[in-house]
Amino acid sequence: VTTSLPAPSRVITLLTDFGLDDPFVGLMKGVIASLDANARVIDTSHGIQPQAVAEAAFWLERSYAYFPAGSVHVAVVDPTVGSARRILAVAAHGHYFLAPDNGLLAESIVRAPGAHVFELDLGRLGLDNPSATFHGRDVFAPVAARLASGALHITAVGPAVQAAPCVLRAPTRDGQTLRGEVVTVDRFGNLITNLERALVESSQARHVELGGRDVPLCRTYADAAPGELLALINAFQVLEVAQRDGSAEQRLGLGRRTPVRLPLSSVLRA
Amino acid sequence: VTTSLPAPSRVITLLTDFGLDDPFVGLMKGVIASLDANARVIDTSHGIQPQAVAEAAFWLERSYAYFPAGSVHVAVVDPTVGSARRILAVAAHGHYFLAPDNGLLAESIVRAPGAHVFELDLGRLGLDNPSATFHGRDVFAPVAARLASGALHITAVGPAVQAAPCVLRAPTRDGQTLRGEVVTVDRFGNLITNLERALVESSQARHVELGGRDVPLCRTYADAAPGELLALINAFQVLEVAQRDGSAEQRLGLGRRTPVRLPLSSVLRA
Amino acid sequence: VTTSLPAPSRVITLLTDFGLDDPFVGLMKGVIASLDANARVIDTSHGIQPQAVAEAAFWLERSYAYFPAGSVHVAVVDPTVGSARRILAVAAHGHYFLAPDNGLLAESIVRAPGAHVFELDLGRLGLDNPSATFHGRDVFAPVAARLASGALHITAVGPAVQAAPCVLRAPTRDGQTLRGEVVTVDRFGNLITNLERALVESSQARHVELGGRDVPLCRTYADAAPGELLALINAFQVLEVAQRDGSAEQRLGLGRRTPVRLPLSSVLRA
Repeated sequence: VTTSLPAPSRVITLLTDFGLDDPFVGLMKGVIASLDANARVIDTSHGIQPQAVAEAAFWLERSYAYFPAGSVHVAVVDPTVGSARRILAVAAHGHYFLAPDNGLLAESIVRAPGAHVFELDLGRLGLDNPSATFHGRDVFAPVAARLASGALHITAVGPAVQAAPCVLRAPTRDGQTLRGEVVTVDRFGNLITNLERALVESSQARHVELGGRDVPLCRTYADAAPGELLALINAFQVLEVAQRDGSAEQRLGLGRRTPVRLPLSSVLRA
Repeated sequence: VTTSLPAPSRVITLLTDFGLDDPFVGLMKGVIASLDANARVIDTSHGIQPQAVAEAAFWLERSYAYFPAGSVHVAVVDPTVGSARRILAVAAHGHYFLAPDNGLLAESIVRAPGAHVFELDLGRLGLDNPSATFHGRDVFAPVAARLASGALHITAVGPAVQAAPCVLRAPTRDGQTLRGEVVTVDRFGNLITNLERALVESSQARHVELGGRDVPLCRTYADAAPGELLALINAFQVLEVAQRDGSAEQRLGLGRRTPVRLPLSSVLRA
Repeated sequence: VTTSLPAPSRVITLLTDFGLDDPFVGLMKGVIASLDANARVIDTSHGIQPQAVAEAAFWLERSYAYFPAGSVHVAVVDPTVGSARRILAVAAHGHYFLAPDNGLLAESIVRAPGAHVFELDLGRLGLDNPSATFHGRDVFAPVAARLASGALHITAVGPAVQAAPCVLRAPTRDGQTLRGEVVTVDRFGNLITNLERALVESSQARHVELGGRDVPLCRTYADAAPGELLALINAFQVLEVAQRDGSAEQRLGLGRRTPVRLPLSSVLRA
């Protein structure tokens, strides 16, 4: 096992639904700094909507590869903190992941070829008395610091296990139509879906449907006139519905979980 | 004096009501980086409600110990910036603190055994012409950088003084009842009070009262059914009122300063 | 050219309208960390209002000098991402700047004596296939990392060009009155204008007018009684309208672009 594991990069990323108004993220960083003065912590985001496990799953899967190999990616969206839910440590694709076993980790991570999935044994780790409400500070931060510094080897965190299925929903095909949904909405009001580039391109569709409207597929925001709606493949390789120089969310009054339909081309229907 | 002072850790924490939408925090970090390329700055929080000195006092007291010994904790919630109010530099519990002398620093810090409390002498520090509106950038940041790097010794910042009383209010006993209050509300809508674990446990209470309701005391969120209200001792060792999988703030329509009553057990009443 | 260019400080600042709820900023930091483990990234602000180029221009011009000489200041407010708009790399005042050529860079930067202004040649930089929607991650971050580490010299990024005029509007004189406007509103509800200290002082005005009201000019917040409106020269050397212990924005119901008038003194009128 060990030979295929990446050398830790000393980079720790944090992805949570903690927000930045409270000191929760700061305290995780304090614990990390106390254990390893050379750790480098990068906030991926703390703006995941409270308890929105699927949104965290989406962003983590599409973010980790932009960080140095050997980074430790900590994702804490954890509605059942304090219960008996497990915490997983995973090595896959040259990166490390720490997350509750609640479906946050994508199938492409936990079921990757060569992936290693372990459950944290809090007793073995000397962390068997965490607070009831803040495992980010009391469990995730110290384990991340020790993994990132090399003080703890992932094979030593606890037993190998199978991860729970990821909560992300895949698009479905229904007759002449591919059906996906809006997974998240960004700061600019762009509606970001689970329809992947390959699916969109193979459909040969010229428009997408959502909220009873047809929106044309374009290559870039600048292809639409100011104020017009458009759909495009965004920087995360999924379909996004946007308004040029505005907010599609506000314009359409639509949000997370909105169904999005992609008509199949006549060629594919045949 | 000097022998009991901690060696600086080069970690500087920032706790303010500046928010993150404006560049105020970034500018403090720019000043620090200009004075010490090796300083490590950690944001505790910048989401303290504007001018809410008590909220900052609460979080600073319950946060600093999670950072490395010898850290410099800078807290700027400073409604009277530009007036003659003093700025304090404190060494206590193996940590350093910089804050306006407006009651932000907890009694447990400024009145700790062995604590050293000094007033910044801006003339002596070469900072006697700061802007009228932004001492975070013009005073707190440069003094923090110099304390954290060891370039400035705390005994050299100015004269020893007595700190103003802390603005945090302690619970009171009223007949058969302990009376506390909600100090802050977190991102998840949890109502966080000033009722300490020891007080709650010694009361032997089975529920707390707020807003005309009785809320049962539990150990963890998972002890309540989804959607139910509960109270528990949180990770900061105080009583918190929460809604399982939801927001107690929204559910109850209650917020900061709400009175919270803890009935004393019949044993204690006797 | 090269002799007048500052040595890179390895500090990269980020100023965007990305907000912090999505992982956009985190991904830029991931790319930077992947290219240079020793880069130090400081967030100036990510709370610029979506697509508000002028607000970014204002804050960048008034922020950069507080960071170490040789810093690379990345500013991404980029409504026409994906179009043919140019990206500039500038050396001026001992600092480096990267921004879209949409008027974000102040005249005092791009037209500074000795300033060097270059257009990024994405082909030459090996970045000729960025995503359509996120040049912050795909262009700005890698170029910033390479400039800050010294791996890329600014003269090698592409051809020397002239920058577009800055979008910031200067105050105008209209008979007996100087006319400026509110450029931005900060977290505390302070209305921050484009009226510079020198202009205000030379006017010898005792009050400013906005929204049909006269507001007295003071030196510091503490010069007004609690709850009263005042105007002062703030820490950024411009006129700001504030409410002592409150929000001028809420009190007046005014915001960005509000006209602000400064009456000229009788001496100046003569």
